[in-house]
Amino acid sequence: MESNSKSTMPCAACKHLRRRCTEDCLFLPYFPAAEPEKFMAVHRVFGASNISKMLQDVPVTDRGDAAASLVYEATARLQQPVYGCVALIASLQKRVFQLQSELDEVSATTMRLRTQLSSALSFIVSSPQSPPLACAAEEGSSHEHNKQLQQCQYGYSYPQMKDYYTEL
Amino acid sequence: MESNSKSTMPCAACKHLRRRCTEDCLFLPYFPAAEPEKFMAVHRVFGASNISKMLQDVPVTDRGDAAASLVYEATARLQQPVYGCVALIASLQKRVFQLQSELDEVSATTMRLRTQLSSALSFIVSSPQSPPLACAAEEGSSHEHNKQLQQCQYGYSYPQMKDYYTEL
Repeated sequence: MESNSKSTMPCAACKHLRRRCTEDCLFLPYFPAAEPEKFMAVHRVFGASNISKMLQDVPVTDRGDAAASLVYEATARLQQPVYGCVALIASLQKRVFQLQSELDEVSATTMRLRTQLSSALSFIVSSPQSPPLACAAEEGSSHEHNKQLQQCQYGYSYPQMKDYYTEL
Repeated sequence: MESNSKSTMPCAACKHLRRRCTEDCLFLPYFPAAEPEKFMAVHRVFGASNISKMLQDVPVTDRGDAAASLVYEATARLQQPVYGCVALIASLQKRVFQLQSELDEVSATTMRLRTQLSSALSFIVSSPQSPPLACAAEEGSSHEHNKQLQQCQYGYSYPQMKDYYTEL
């Protein structure tokens, strides 16, 4: 009895439009009775007839997504009567522009810092007295530090660089 | 005669709905006869009655924006029947997420490079034999290079730093 009563429960659309809901009702899968606000929103913004046409115009497999996007648009329009979900589009486009600008700026800074670090390390390594390397060999922490710097910048560490330096 | 004929030219809505267009027609300012596709789009997606209600629900000063956003939504829905302009929202949200991730990554790299550059310059300056500074004094290009590095990192250049170094 219970399952039978569930299957004959009218969908939110049929309940709102006060008509008999059948098993092949177009709205039934997408506008369940438990969520009447969804149909109310699309009905107020698009109208039941347009919703029906728009759902019928897309393949059955896409109707769930179509109904969801229509509910989304309708809800946004009721919340923001002037701009609807276009307000969110404008806001997101602005955010994308800001982030792209920030990213370009930080990327340029990164490039500049890489060049400067490369120059600083080249300066340390290419000194005729090679004091930084000698110094680093004498001081444990400085040696480790220098090694880390080289590893990070060039992808290889002090001993390899020292070999290369000695070969010259 | 010409100006009179212009004022009585029906708007796109009235022309489409085959009704007489009056001077106080609600659609006239927003759906000119020269752009019939705009009214066609909103009529197909929202229906003339809903458009009329939605325009009346907002202040007169906002109706131009409301009509434009409705045209935008309707056009998007006709182009993408499943997702409408929600497709653009999803795409923009994805782009914002990607850009934010990239920005976080590049910012972290910048922080790391700053620390490394600072360490490299400290290493050059604090060497007991002060070879980089001596070296820089001997070699014009290296001197200029070292000066630039110091200027960029610390905001002051070699002579000031040398003075500070000598005072220690």
